[in-house]
Amino acid sequence: MQKKKRAKEPGKQKGRNQKSQNRSQSNFDILFGINSIYESLKADRRKFFEIYLSKDPKSNQLLKITELAEKREIRILNETPEKLTDLSGSDYHQGVCAKVSEYPVVDIQQFINLKEPFLLLVENVVDPSNLGALIRTAHCAGVDGIITLKDRAASHTPSVSRASAGALEHVKFARVTNMVNCINELKEHGIWVTGLDAKATTSLYDANLKGSLAIVVGGEDKGVRPLVQKNCDFLISIPQKGSFNSLNASVAGAIVMYESLRQRNI
Amino acid sequence: MQKKKRAKEPGKQKGRNQKSQNRSQSNFDILFGINSIYESLKADRRKFFEIYLSKDPKSNQLLKITELAEKREIRILNETPEKLTDLSGSDYHQGVCAKVSEYPVVDIQQFINLKEPFLLLVENVVDPSNLGALIRTAHCAGVDGIITLKDRAASHTPSVSRASAGALEHVKFARVTNMVNCINELKEHGIWVTGLDAKATTSLYDANLKGSLAIVVGGEDKGVRPLVQKNCDFLISIPQKGSFNSLNASVAGAIVMYESLRQRNI
Repeated sequence: MQKKKRAKEPGKQKGRNQKSQNRSQSNFDILFGINSIYESLKADRRKFFEIYLSKDPKSNQLLKITELAEKREIRILNETPEKLTDLSGSDYHQGVCAKVSEYPVVDIQQFINLKEPFLLLVENVVDPSNLGALIRTAHCAGVDGIITLKDRAASHTPSVSRASAGALEHVKFARVTNMVNCINELKEHGIWVTGLDAKATTSLYDANLKGSLAIVVGGEDKGVRPLVQKNCDFLISIPQKGSFNSLNASVAGAIVMYESLRQRNI
Repeated sequence: MQKKKRAKEPGKQKGRNQKSQNRSQSNFDILFGINSIYESLKADRRKFFEIYLSKDPKSNQLLKITELAEKREIRILNETPEKLTDLSGSDYHQGVCAKVSEYPVVDIQQFINLKEPFLLLVENVVDPSNLGALIRTAHCAGVDGIITLKDRAASHTPSVSRASAGALEHVKFARVTNMVNCINELKEHGIWVTGLDAKATTSLYDANLKGSLAIVVGGEDKGVRPLVQKNCDFLISIPQKGSFNSLNASVAGAIVMYESLRQRNI
């Protein structure tokens, strides 16, 4: 849960070598870390250009990556660990990076068209670890789609893919410019929108979290912004017994998503 | 959630300047980070020897620290940020460190003596961030005590205090040499022990998690060890809908602790 200060977001590469490559390769990502790359191969939604390994694929998971890569005729290159750190912009590559096509962001219309969508709206979460953790839990809890803000927020970067243990590669992920407009559009289509607020008088355990539902979780410091709260259908809080009200953003989101899943299953 | 490789655990200092200091100061910790130090002052369980600041206490929370410190006549020294990094062994000090007495570990007998203890047993979690996150959630969920292993596991270090947002300073925390012996002792005293296991056929939502209960959560990679599982009264799983079974250890723990809290409150 520790915030990391970084000069730049690792793994995000734009327009490098544009002249010498075809259009599909002009914008690409450098995924890094075993789970991120393995799950991306499994999900099969991105084009893999090349995989870079800095060690013998002795571990089971690295072997699974090379097996899948060979089956799909993806070129595997040996590189030094330093080169992988340079490529990914991170020390956490675990000996493997991959040059892949950009992340397949979807439009929120896809979610609106679902029968009973179960959505997660992430507002102002800036730490890639927290967004990654939320995406990982959302995927496990059966969330149909995740929506974040385009500006001033963590997004679908290779760091987030890694922090999500590769869950980002499986989920449907959309970005919007304005969260209030997005909430109102969801409401117009019959989706209930609930926001997390530590001061809300309704406990999540007393709320109906079944059916078409979008859960809004807020940023690390200030939670869901007042204007966004005002546009939610109802607000819920998580009971807290300690001497300070301070659940981590990704844990709070996990508790709400799983309470919704519990209610759906009974 | 990212594992950090560190040459040494930050903030843990033993026996430094033993000759020139009295016995109470011979073993001490260097706490770092705003929440950790503020919550430790509030909890008032450790002796504060000195507080080191590298900037003007302009932020609300730093001001709260200096106010409490002045009230208790704790010496505040100005230091450079580099000196704080050196003292704490970490870059995440947020401009404040404190030299304090060692953490007040308790004995599990304290938990056994409670009327209906609600306990968290953490097995083999090695990442201070994950243990800190579990402690933070445990405190919010009203857990009475946390038990970890003495060896090969993250423990009550300043890093964990920081990762717990200071919750470690409030909770009751015990360490045992052998988890199986500990579980059997709890069982002998009428405490039910349940272990998390992704393969368990009983969902946590179908289990009785009320009353005297100890929840065992396992490490990041392998979960609860088979021998420990065998000694639990019953095993529970968290339903997972995604294409891979992979909730983060601290999130899985949070979901079980909060389901127990929900059942206790109805």
